[in-house]
Amino acid sequence: MSRVNQERVNRVLQRMAKDNVEQIIITSPVSMRYLTGEYIDSSWERCGALYLNNRGNITAVINQLQKYIQIEGANVIHYHDTEDPIAILAKQVLPGKLGVDKQWPARYVLHLMELCPNNPLINGSPYMDMTRMVKEPEEQEKLRLSSAMNDRVVAKSIQAIQEGLSEVDLAEKVNEFFAAEGAAVRNLCLVQFGENCAIPHHGAAKDFFLKPGEHVLVDIVKNLNGYYSDMTRTVVYKEATDFQKEIYDIVLQANLAAIDAVKAGVRACDVDAAARDIITKAGYGEYFTHRTGHNIGIEVHEWPDIAATNEMPLEAGMCFSIEPGIYIPGKIGVRIEDLVIVTENGCENLNHYTKEFQVIK
Amino acid sequence: MSRVNQERVNRVLQRMAKDNVEQIIITSPVSMRYLTGEYIDSSWERCGALYLNNRGNITAVINQLQKYIQIEGANVIHYHDTEDPIAILAKQVLPGKLGVDKQWPARYVLHLMELCPNNPLINGSPYMDMTRMVKEPEEQEKLRLSSAMNDRVVAKSIQAIQEGLSEVDLAEKVNEFFAAEGAAVRNLCLVQFGENCAIPHHGAAKDFFLKPGEHVLVDIVKNLNGYYSDMTRTVVYKEATDFQKEIYDIVLQANLAAIDAVKAGVRACDVDAAARDIITKAGYGEYFTHRTGHNIGIEVHEWPDIAATNEMPLEAGMCFSIEPGIYIPGKIGVRIEDLVIVTENGCENLNHYTKEFQVIK
Repeated sequence: MSRVNQERVNRVLQRMAKDNVEQIIITSPVSMRYLTGEYIDSSWERCGALYLNNRGNITAVINQLQKYIQIEGANVIHYHDTEDPIAILAKQVLPGKLGVDKQWPARYVLHLMELCPNNPLINGSPYMDMTRMVKEPEEQEKLRLSSAMNDRVVAKSIQAIQEGLSEVDLAEKVNEFFAAEGAAVRNLCLVQFGENCAIPHHGAAKDFFLKPGEHVLVDIVKNLNGYYSDMTRTVVYKEATDFQKEIYDIVLQANLAAIDAVKAGVRACDVDAAARDIITKAGYGEYFTHRTGHNIGIEVHEWPDIAATNEMPLEAGMCFSIEPGIYIPGKIGVRIEDLVIVTENGCENLNHYTKEFQVIK
Repeated sequence: MSRVNQERVNRVLQRMAKDNVEQIIITSPVSMRYLTGEYIDSSWERCGALYLNNRGNITAVINQLQKYIQIEGANVIHYHDTEDPIAILAKQVLPGKLGVDKQWPARYVLHLMELCPNNPLINGSPYMDMTRMVKEPEEQEKLRLSSAMNDRVVAKSIQAIQEGLSEVDLAEKVNEFFAAEGAAVRNLCLVQFGENCAIPHHGAAKDFFLKPGEHVLVDIVKNLNGYYSDMTRTVVYKEATDFQKEIYDIVLQANLAAIDAVKAGVRACDVDAAARDIITKAGYGEYFTHRTGHNIGIEVHEWPDIAATNEMPLEAGMCFSIEPGIYIPGKIGVRIEDLVIVTENGCENLNHYTKEFQVIK
């Protein structure tokens, strides 16, 4: 039987108290596991939820499919498919504002509003996510180990590049390298050749074979001991043009400038600007089509973003990606991505594999 | 470039018109693809959406990461990470009720409520889902082919059972059988031995090895040409007890009774009751811990459920699972699952692999 992590719960409640929010419904399975040790399923079909308030009520509402879950320190209520989990939650609710999970499906949100018409609902996830955002020392160590493994696999993957490989062939080699590390095969790996690199989320294709002069972009996400790594390197195969070198250098300067800007107290948007300004000044601003980074930890993408719209000051212990890119459709795509942990005086880069411009012979 | 399927859009609008709902926001990527042919990403991080109203406005709001998507017959608006997709949607909205997707994350729902305070929001998914629920003839044919493949793979999987296999070993054989069918490996396969069968969603374990006298439950979900199959069989290895035979027979009778009850016009809850009554009368009602079935098609689980709480009359062309089970924790678990297509006079069972009680020698 698992147990409520009261210290983490207290940190969530403290963040809520600053905004006079007394109660919250958490439905992200990952957040619920962070607080209770148990992975409680929650989907649009079957709602799993953790209700917390500042009077000590910690109630987990769980479908009977997970009848085996019990949590020390929480009131656990199992419901049958014929019962209404939202009505069970509504019974816990105190008067006043009620935070709900940012991801909670509309069908539940609208139903809870009917049952609790006098409770103003707000997005309560920032309280939860800002708690998760600041990594505990043991979590930081797991993030380091996870990225160290990714560094090794990226190095081997770049060594394995050869003519005639398809994107899928190289992606399968990535799997083998993880297997050789003793890590389960499941990972998310974007392998992109040539003009495909200009499509940021393009997945590996079977029928796209490497030719000299093409870019190879590998973006590998991997979970080790519950903590994610996420890194990207882009290299050129055999022969590089001046244009490829020029674009690479701009992205590298943007990556370095953003990392240089990271420090506790600096606003997230200023880190984004550090990268974006360099790309914009070089004339490629319209081709940097996404945010500079995202937090990471027990999920690949955690809130908040390192983006122009986020004015939140960074806190020591945050871990996020710095991943500027330039994507010119049909032509070229380059991204360089590292993970960093914020410190009082700057940051620690978790990725040590070289970022020098590489032409693979 | 793909094109709006106007016939499907019209069917959604017709279902809406019966309830005087004039506009809807659809955000399920699968539903958006059903209507437009394009898979538009949508998540709590980046919102993709399709707005429809009865005055001919069809607007797709898409993040720039999918800049390449264009849809004939729709107004396509791409937004950058720094722009607010909900504000773009709000500009489309007419006065009056507004249907939103059942799965739409709370952060968007709450934000849209701020921007459109006078529009009562409702769960609009039933209009969309009931349109998808009635399968077109070509869709029915794809469902038949998908289940026929699953039938063959289940047959081979049961033949492959032998002492000392782990659950994962057998699950890997299932992958091989799909590969031999020329089908991509990705499938969802629950392989459960012995007392693990009593945990309905238990995934295959590496360290759980088959012994004589144990149940083997295989529940295989597989997508072929965009349409899912989903079937479960439970057999006993080497030697069976009377108790195993008794429980199996009850579940089989429940499965057959529910299939026998299916017919256009019959209420979903009555199909559930047909199965449940048999299990309850036999004294195991408390161990049938889930609904009798779920719709299926371009998603594994489609709305609505075949459940005690659903009084909707069945329509010809619906395809759903009939999957009663008895799960006695720590002891025994049996489930038998087929897919059926509803007809005016009854139903067509898509699974032909035997349901006789089998002891595998």
